[in-house]
Amino acid sequence: MCQLMGMSCNVPTDICFSFTGFRARGGRTDVHKDGWGIAFFEDRGVRMFVDTSPSFESPIAEFVRNYPIKSKNVVAHIRRATRGVVALENTHPFQRELWGRYWVFAHNGTLPDYQPEFNGSFSPVGATDSERAFCNILERMETEHKHLDMKDEVDVAKLFDTIHAACMDLGARGEFNFLMSSGRNLIAHCSTTLSYILRQAPWSTARLKDEDISIDFQHYTTETDRVAVVATSPLTENETWITMKPGTLSFFKDGELFMTRDTVAGPPKKIEDFKP
Amino acid sequence: MCQLMGMSCNVPTDICFSFTGFRARGGRTDVHKDGWGIAFFEDRGVRMFVDTSPSFESPIAEFVRNYPIKSKNVVAHIRRATRGVVALENTHPFQRELWGRYWVFAHNGTLPDYQPEFNGSFSPVGATDSERAFCNILERMETEHKHLDMKDEVDVAKLFDTIHAACMDLGARGEFNFLMSSGRNLIAHCSTTLSYILRQAPWSTARLKDEDISIDFQHYTTETDRVAVVATSPLTENETWITMKPGTLSFFKDGELFMTRDTVAGPPKKIEDFKP
Repeated sequence: MCQLMGMSCNVPTDICFSFTGFRARGGRTDVHKDGWGIAFFEDRGVRMFVDTSPSFESPIAEFVRNYPIKSKNVVAHIRRATRGVVALENTHPFQRELWGRYWVFAHNGTLPDYQPEFNGSFSPVGATDSERAFCNILERMETEHKHLDMKDEVDVAKLFDTIHAACMDLGARGEFNFLMSSGRNLIAHCSTTLSYILRQAPWSTARLKDEDISIDFQHYTTETDRVAVVATSPLTENETWITMKPGTLSFFKDGELFMTRDTVAGPPKKIEDFKP
Repeated sequence: MCQLMGMSCNVPTDICFSFTGFRARGGRTDVHKDGWGIAFFEDRGVRMFVDTSPSFESPIAEFVRNYPIKSKNVVAHIRRATRGVVALENTHPFQRELWGRYWVFAHNGTLPDYQPEFNGSFSPVGATDSERAFCNILERMETEHKHLDMKDEVDVAKLFDTIHAACMDLGARGEFNFLMSSGRNLIAHCSTTLSYILRQAPWSTARLKDEDISIDFQHYTTETDRVAVVATSPLTENETWITMKPGTLSFFKDGELFMTRDTVAGPPKKIEDFKP
């Protein structure tokens, strides 16, 4: 199994504090030693760091922890190999382009014997069930929204349905917690274990679970800032994290929970002028 | 205009020495201040660092210079923006997946008014002529080798022809020096300015042009190592670099010049059991 962490903000925010606690799980406070990766969106561009060393020891992780990269959408992953050897091509997040946007994806769980056929639009490079699932989701998105090109905007309710259907199919095959983003949102699916917190004013002090470090957000934020952090398990010990119900698909945008559905039936709770 | 650098080796080799000279051109010894990027292949995986800061000042470039990442295929680029603003999505190298392999691409030159139509398989994310050219080449590759899937190997002579035809078309529209790789080779096209050097035993000392630094390769190599370095202009001052003739397309593999064609007519000079 693995560990996931994601962030959605309304202004570019650095993730140094959360990443400090998260990376400790890669070999120090937890057993996920088989590589790690993090993707930072900057508008349409994406900056990706991946490494096969344990995140707790990785010089690249040390660099990321100390170098404040500001981003509105972040997806991070620490790997414990269950399918596919320890190799760079098996390290999450994975990245592809669709509709003139980069999409990144990281998965926690295992989909036993998942070997789908692909139509060639998106082919796995590595040997993980996770990358196969990502390629399958993108193939469904492309197939079901065929009319789209770069000039069009996707119908978000329809996109939510497409991804939700994929979650139902793939979630029935095994553990399928994932984070996904195209830089405008953070898509989170809870199959078994995923929590989130929505931070906004009034700001207070947060203390990490995995390191003896606190931060007073007042010094780094403004009244209007909003930050959503999603993680396999809560990263701080003095804040109230919300445990996602298994089966829930949620879209976060600008630090807020934008759309969510926790059962197969019924429409998403919220649809506004959302652009995936 | 921009600066290109690539490396092809028969054993994973770090690029710290060459990168030290190359990065100086991003704001110190030359004017290419609008970002930089480098892609290192590790087997099928790729590790990409991109930044919009001048490479000479960039903390990420400083990290890359000091942290020896070993790779058999490297593509690097320093940008001076001529088309598209300074932004991460306009920073080379660009990356896509085709046939279950990652492909990276970096371009030096300008293709004025180049606005091709795309079939949707590969769409540009940023606003550069360079990324449009890359998407066009990949689209040609996919279209002309349609039968291929992950289980097949491409016919290399045919692939060479496909890319050569793209070079003829695009090279007629402007300056189109580029480097491209899928991790098994280094593809180089000289439209106006590109040089390379093939290094092998007996090893000697090389001195950078852009920094007061020398290296005695004897201490870092073995008898059987082979390294090809390709750059917009020679990186060292006491070695003999080969100036590529305008119009030349070359495939380097395992540190050797594998296939090359410098005119439109005639077959490539060398075809062996090459796998792109």
